[in-house]
Amino acid sequence: MAQDLSPAQRTLTVGVLGAGTVGSQVIRLLTEQADDFAARSGARLEITGVAVRDVNAPRDFAVPQDLLTDDATAVATGNDLVIELIGGIEPARTLILAAFKAGASVITGNKALIAAHGPELYTAAAAAGTDFYYEAAVAGAIPVVYALRESMAGDRVTSVLGIVNGTTNYILDEMSTKGLSFETALATAQELGYAEADPTADVDGLDAAAKAAIIASLAFHTRVGLDDVSVEGIRKVTADDIREAHASGCEFKLLAIAQRREDEHAQGVSVRVHPALVPNDHPLASVHGAYNAVLVEAESAGRLMFYGQGAGGAPTASAVLSDVVAAAAHRVHGGQAPRESSYASLPVLGPEAAVTRYQIQLRSDDAVGSLAAMASVFAENGVSINSVRQSAYVTSDGSQDQAVVTFVTHPAPVFHLDAAVEGLRVSDRVAEVVSIQRVEGE
Amino acid sequence: MAQDLSPAQRTLTVGVLGAGTVGSQVIRLLTEQADDFAARSGARLEITGVAVRDVNAPRDFAVPQDLLTDDATAVATGNDLVIELIGGIEPARTLILAAFKAGASVITGNKALIAAHGPELYTAAAAAGTDFYYEAAVAGAIPVVYALRESMAGDRVTSVLGIVNGTTNYILDEMSTKGLSFETALATAQELGYAEADPTADVDGLDAAAKAAIIASLAFHTRVGLDDVSVEGIRKVTADDIREAHASGCEFKLLAIAQRREDEHAQGVSVRVHPALVPNDHPLASVHGAYNAVLVEAESAGRLMFYGQGAGGAPTASAVLSDVVAAAAHRVHGGQAPRESSYASLPVLGPEAAVTRYQIQLRSDDAVGSLAAMASVFAENGVSINSVRQSAYVTSDGSQDQAVVTFVTHPAPVFHLDAAVEGLRVSDRVAEVVSIQRVEGE
Repeated sequence: MAQDLSPAQRTLTVGVLGAGTVGSQVIRLLTEQADDFAARSGARLEITGVAVRDVNAPRDFAVPQDLLTDDATAVATGNDLVIELIGGIEPARTLILAAFKAGASVITGNKALIAAHGPELYTAAAAAGTDFYYEAAVAGAIPVVYALRESMAGDRVTSVLGIVNGTTNYILDEMSTKGLSFETALATAQELGYAEADPTADVDGLDAAAKAAIIASLAFHTRVGLDDVSVEGIRKVTADDIREAHASGCEFKLLAIAQRREDEHAQGVSVRVHPALVPNDHPLASVHGAYNAVLVEAESAGRLMFYGQGAGGAPTASAVLSDVVAAAAHRVHGGQAPRESSYASLPVLGPEAAVTRYQIQLRSDDAVGSLAAMASVFAENGVSINSVRQSAYVTSDGSQDQAVVTFVTHPAPVFHLDAAVEGLRVSDRVAEVVSIQRVEGE
Repeated sequence: MAQDLSPAQRTLTVGVLGAGTVGSQVIRLLTEQADDFAARSGARLEITGVAVRDVNAPRDFAVPQDLLTDDATAVATGNDLVIELIGGIEPARTLILAAFKAGASVITGNKALIAAHGPELYTAAAAAGTDFYYEAAVAGAIPVVYALRESMAGDRVTSVLGIVNGTTNYILDEMSTKGLSFETALATAQELGYAEADPTADVDGLDAAAKAAIIASLAFHTRVGLDDVSVEGIRKVTADDIREAHASGCEFKLLAIAQRREDEHAQGVSVRVHPALVPNDHPLASVHGAYNAVLVEAESAGRLMFYGQGAGGAPTASAVLSDVVAAAAHRVHGGQAPRESSYASLPVLGPEAAVTRYQIQLRSDDAVGSLAAMASVFAENGVSINSVRQSAYVTSDGSQDQAVVTFVTHPAPVFHLDAAVEGLRVSDRVAEVVSIQRVEGE
């Protein structure tokens, strides 16, 4: 502690691991706005090293050549504050553990690492008596980590619903507005640099799942890892699905969902990532392109929404740098970042315990008499119906002896919903179950 | 510091000043969820006293009778944490200063007090080495104070635009959807308990102005008090104004605006509250009823939006209790809330330096030749035009020799905009300047 030193006298050293899109912005801002950072954190922040794989690679921002080094361990263990922006599990994990051991505070945006090894990192920070911050790991510039970790500390979160992956949101937007297939929309996104050459982490929902695990851990004071998240990406979404969604007054979105169940059937948390229909009048339906939004429902606060840019160099750097100021201020004035809070230890429920709504489309004999029979299948399985829509089905021979019926249910556990679908499949009133989509957001 | 004690062993005492709508919720939640609060803050939180004016008045929640007292000073000076929910300047100010002097951390939601005496309270907290928290002072459950004070600590905020008063938003909504006059809408709001018997603080913009001062102080690291805010309420808004707004594709909203100017004409901050047209496709246009929303623009983060319930017992209690957990954790683990950050000391600019857009409606001789003449008046005053709309004006004798022309400008300083209006007034092409409205949000 050195509360008697002015910012001009006190210096904290900063090491940066990685100088990509985010890292180069962090370095630029720390350099250009050095006086602001000194005034806000109580110490001058001096970058002493930037670890990169190839010190001669071309970069967005002219990082002073003498700061570049390929000795990542030296950067990790030789500074007061270490900013990890390499991504991936290794060597990031080893470097962060080494940084804590050397007494550093660590700031990272590495969602995959936290979802896989969060408790280990928290423990290392606590042992070192230093800070572990990761605002940039979820939804870029939007302060979701803080909101859940601190703003909701006096409340009980019941659910979090988010659009937390800009790449898939962009692809679904392109499919929605231009009627493109998934493959064409993905190719466009790759051409424009919005999707990686290997798009797996984004389109298969893994990036969103890591964020869902982090969100659920914070929201429910319970350890939730990547393996606890049931994941379905957007590869199977077709242009037809999206046309159908529009016909139902909905948009198709890839959602990260963390839900608390506390009813007679199940107690625990459900964490999942999947595409779902979102009604047009729901705030998440109008989140477009690379924007992210996170909707938090809590017992006292009610519904809160946070919206902003979910990725990109500058927005992510903004999140990293707010953590840098907080960690630096703690080193100057004392105090610490919140430790892991997992005291609630709620059971993590399987996908069958998720509570959602189904939109079920089926072909039936002309439905006048059938509708009551079908409705009773829902009722028998404890599922109530929100809306029914019926339209004529033109068979291949031009006759219209069948109807297409679209049911949207009220929220119910997947277990019950699936039982109702099975009941419809075997009903002699139902010619074919055409499609089943989840509907989220009310 | 007592890091070796478990939450079960360590106790912090809590005093509550005021047991109204918010206070009674705070007391209920602290009691009902005592184990959660202990786990999250590291100590059991024990309410030792609740100061009220009349210990026998009926209350929302059964506060244990033996906690009630009319000795507010004893409650303020006899506890580790003091929650001030009386509101108003005195005796709240004196009690909070006494609490700091007695070594307490203070949590308040008192926007009027902070806007008037913020620096004095910050100084007292720093002298005591304790915390001063006030998340509940701005926008209820929405963590705006945190967002500006901590999440934006690594960024440069350029503007904040918010709907931060639910009462006026409700009244404007009623006028907008039902075509009511201001007086009728206000009466409805009063009947339903959304507006007070004396509605001055809300409808004259003073409540929003106090929040604008707090927002600007945090956003720009500069002391901004209530007197620095130029304020106009909604009393003069007519049903006609709102019809005109709809015709222009806008909603009428009371906005709190904090803007940073850094151009050749002015450097400093502009802070104001006034009704303005907001285009329908802007996120603030769809914020209805008692909901609040705050839009922050920052250099790196870009645009962020925070949305949620801006008032009410439970939502405000959620904000108070997150502060309680933070302050309690500091007493257990060390550390402190952020101190006042006013290092930037930017000049506070007068209302003429505000940058806004005008919608100017005027009657003119049939505008074929006049339009060019009018456009040049804008150009001469350094104002560029965003859009022009023209419609026939039916004079009282049934002839149509005049036109109604509606200009919407691009953003420009009020100084230039007013000069352009003056130029139009004296132009012989202009029969009458019918109305001038500000337009905010792009």
